[in-house]
Amino acid sequence: MTLILGIDPGSRKTGFGIINAAGTNGSKLEYVTSGIIRLPTGELPERLKVIFDSVSEIIREHNPLEMAVEEVFFARDPRAALKLGQARGAAIVAGVTAGLAVAEYAARSVKQSVVGSGAAKKEQVQHMVKHLLKLPSTPAEDAADGLAVALCHAQTMRTATSIGGQLRYSKGRLKQVAKTNTVLES
Amino acid sequence: MTLILGIDPGSRKTGFGIINAAGTNGSKLEYVTSGIIRLPTGELPERLKVIFDSVSEIIREHNPLEMAVEEVFFARDPRAALKLGQARGAAIVAGVTAGLAVAEYAARSVKQSVVGSGAAKKEQVQHMVKHLLKLPSTPAEDAADGLAVALCHAQTMRTATSIGGQLRYSKGRLKQVAKTNTVLES
Repeated sequence: MTLILGIDPGSRKTGFGIINAAGTNGSKLEYVTSGIIRLPTGELPERLKVIFDSVSEIIREHNPLEMAVEEVFFARDPRAALKLGQARGAAIVAGVTAGLAVAEYAARSVKQSVVGSGAAKKEQVQHMVKHLLKLPSTPAEDAADGLAVALCHAQTMRTATSIGGQLRYSKGRLKQVAKTNTVLES
Repeated sequence: MTLILGIDPGSRKTGFGIINAAGTNGSKLEYVTSGIIRLPTGELPERLKVIFDSVSEIIREHNPLEMAVEEVFFARDPRAALKLGQARGAAIVAGVTAGLAVAEYAARSVKQSVVGSGAAKKEQVQHMVKHLLKLPSTPAEDAADGLAVALCHAQTMRTATSIGGQLRYSKGRLKQVAKTNTVLES
């Protein structure tokens, strides 16, 4: 079993989800937990501390081995991009300082992996996350995005292993594997 | 004495400087250390970890009480803003998790405070940092920027105290104080 923590960072709220890639080759996917870290209003340092502390606590509680973070595409507003970057930085640092291998996946790759289309809508992602993890109800948008990137990571790892077992699991190469996977899928 | 750590975050290198605001009311400013954290090429999570670990180590070694971070203005490129935000997030999280009060200062306020003009050039900042801290030689650009934001913070704290001692030193209000200070100066 491999617990995977998926993170969808945002400057107002950060979605997270943990799945268990169980069974041979991680082919059986189980829901573990998910939720949303809502940031308080107020000064930036405190807000970033909430992200860092919350992600650290989730890691301590569930002890996942790997972390997958959505790579964001955003509008033309550099100010929004800066804010998002800060939130992302805080979340990623929580992962790497806890010793997790952290992989990044483009939003397009996540949708491609979970829904089968890189242009899928939010609702389709929610629907497929519910379906794939056999959830009794549809998860909230940000939580679903956290679960989706964890699912994308699980699938990428499985594909990478099954296409020849060449995968050396290192942080430096995970991203490359993800890209290769996207190509293989299309 | 109050040790202040100034940080000028960047996605390729992050400048830092520590000063000691000694004497009555922190009016005597002394150089403690400064330098540049150069980020390795490679994957983002590792790069952010280098920032977090380096800033954490600087804090452990020198034990500053307060941290001041330059607020950046940037070009129209959201991608560059995202990268910068990530670096900033990693640096700020290192400060808040170590228990430091973290204040932010706009680049303009830093220049205004150190050089006397919000539109000052990089060289002027380097020159004034050298002068104010009685350094034997001009510090490198990023290190000078780290020292400059620390100097700006020291001056803001001093002004805030001397205009009536009303300053409650809390993270939530520091920024406001900085803004007030800029108004007072102009």
